[in-house]
Amino acid sequence: MSWKDHLIKIAPYVAGEQPDKKDFVKLNANENPYPPSPLVTKAIRDFDAEDLKRYPSADAVPLMKAIADDLGTDSSRIFTGNGSDDVLALCFRAFFNSDKPVIFPDITYSFYPVWCRMYGIPFKTVPVDEDFNINAADYARENGGVVIANPNAPTSIGRDLDFMRQILEENPDSVVISDEAYVDFGGHTALPLLGEYENLIVVRTFSKSRSMAGSRIGFAVGGDALISALRAAKDSYNSYPLDSVAIKAGCASLADKAYFEQTVEKVIATRTRLTQKLREMGFVLPDSSTNFVFAHHDKYRAEDIYKYLVSKDIYVRYFRSPERISDHLRITVGTDEQTDLLINTLESYIK
Amino acid sequence: MSWKDHLIKIAPYVAGEQPDKKDFVKLNANENPYPPSPLVTKAIRDFDAEDLKRYPSADAVPLMKAIADDLGTDSSRIFTGNGSDDVLALCFRAFFNSDKPVIFPDITYSFYPVWCRMYGIPFKTVPVDEDFNINAADYARENGGVVIANPNAPTSIGRDLDFMRQILEENPDSVVISDEAYVDFGGHTALPLLGEYENLIVVRTFSKSRSMAGSRIGFAVGGDALISALRAAKDSYNSYPLDSVAIKAGCASLADKAYFEQTVEKVIATRTRLTQKLREMGFVLPDSSTNFVFAHHDKYRAEDIYKYLVSKDIYVRYFRSPERISDHLRITVGTDEQTDLLINTLESYIK
Repeated sequence: MSWKDHLIKIAPYVAGEQPDKKDFVKLNANENPYPPSPLVTKAIRDFDAEDLKRYPSADAVPLMKAIADDLGTDSSRIFTGNGSDDVLALCFRAFFNSDKPVIFPDITYSFYPVWCRMYGIPFKTVPVDEDFNINAADYARENGGVVIANPNAPTSIGRDLDFMRQILEENPDSVVISDEAYVDFGGHTALPLLGEYENLIVVRTFSKSRSMAGSRIGFAVGGDALISALRAAKDSYNSYPLDSVAIKAGCASLADKAYFEQTVEKVIATRTRLTQKLREMGFVLPDSSTNFVFAHHDKYRAEDIYKYLVSKDIYVRYFRSPERISDHLRITVGTDEQTDLLINTLESYIK
Repeated sequence: MSWKDHLIKIAPYVAGEQPDKKDFVKLNANENPYPPSPLVTKAIRDFDAEDLKRYPSADAVPLMKAIADDLGTDSSRIFTGNGSDDVLALCFRAFFNSDKPVIFPDITYSFYPVWCRMYGIPFKTVPVDEDFNINAADYARENGGVVIANPNAPTSIGRDLDFMRQILEENPDSVVISDEAYVDFGGHTALPLLGEYENLIVVRTFSKSRSMAGSRIGFAVGGDALISALRAAKDSYNSYPLDSVAIKAGCASLADKAYFEQTVEKVIATRTRLTQKLREMGFVLPDSSTNFVFAHHDKYRAEDIYKYLVSKDIYVRYFRSPERISDHLRITVGTDEQTDLLINTLESYIK
């Protein structure tokens, strides 16, 4: 056998296109259209580069404390990582060591099956209903773990606290991950349930609502057993996942609550306007609890709209698969200006 | 079965102590005592924080290109990651999928067995000889992969190009990792062999010679088959391991060759002086090809020396295990001032 026979064989996650040109409207990666807080700018400008000669705090302690303060919890309940992808991957490795399949919706973040394959974790997808809703009752089945993105992507649909409580009630023997990447845009966090359910872990990111996708900061909130297992998995992979600049920048973002709230409100206001305009044009889309919308048009094929928008230098996300969503577009909520351009371009296509 | 039965059970890597006090001499993590290049300071100060709202380049393309230019190779041969720990872990996952054991020295970087356990990779350690040398002939045995730290840690011993060539000649059917974290301090890189051996991968870091442990930049250099497998493994774990500030800072470091060379020379000069002084005090230590020394004293126990140094606020690395090195100290080469203080303190203990 040659060494080539033992190389990994895996189909990786494919992210949205990053066109290699300057002037285009980028509404395909659910990035925040607004910059991070001015305090983040200041933290980076004031960063003493000499600090880089030292390893960062292995657990990003200052950031861990700042997140705990922000959430009104104890820092021992916080775990930080290199974006929520790193945190989620470590959750899969740390929590899902059963022979039973981990379950998650068929339409959800497409990295979940990739991590399962990466770690050899059996999994089974549970169909969302015809309106793309996740129904808690469908998760009352034998499993080795449950993963729920709430709000879900790419559907944009958020569920309430009772939904998550029902999932937890049905699954006392499994770890339940509440992936809340988009929760700040109007979703319902499972954080209030942490005190009642030791098997719940909540995962968050600075990439969306805090406009810091470039800093790669994710975190988890949970009880001792889960956080300890996460730390053991992390310290078996990479001791220092967060760099020193990101740790300082993350703390600075948390220090500016007013800016955070204003930014989120602006995105929500634009989303409301975008949703209404799209519906006026005949698009069908659920109410979004995220910073994107998930839209379908009965008369125009999503792929054709996508291609037309690309020809006008506007990039939205079009998914060729799975088939259930292959006639949908996922459109990030941009600035008002970007949104006007999008709406005008769509109107010129549809008219 | 409860969810608690399915949590990960693993003994993680334990890094050197990070005392929670301000004034101490830190010679226990092989950090560079000098700051990064002034160009790194400038790159961070000039960083436009608005860029953080966007995801970074998934493959850290600007940094990949800068590394390739620095090494005089093509950027398609470069893979970057979140410190060399991330890169090495992905190498283990991507290359070692055989049922045969991966082999590496018994005395080497202690993360290797941790990654094997993390991924369920069988492994076997090969004893270094009584002088802590790795002998290439010992690697002529059936295996599922070979990992050689060259220079090796914590022994500080570097081997030449013929050594690595012999390892490669003996192992045409295995991927061979040359872990060169310390190579810039006088080691012999395997890079010239890459053209001849498609199964060779070279792993490097910005943490030591470039004084950027806080930026978490590691990279690998290799041929198409290995780099493609690494990218597939990376894209199955975390698409964006390097943040936007680190990418710019890393490029800035590479742009300042003169500073890099001066810093390395200063460390080597101090190492020469430290080695001589330690030998005069009766320490036994091999010639180091790294930014640390690996010392033993026939009359004084390493643990006692370690504790005495701690009492004087000087931290070096003492390993309780494995037993073969439990009477040795690993001492990072600091500034001249730190080194003088270390030498004077040791002299006061030994006299």
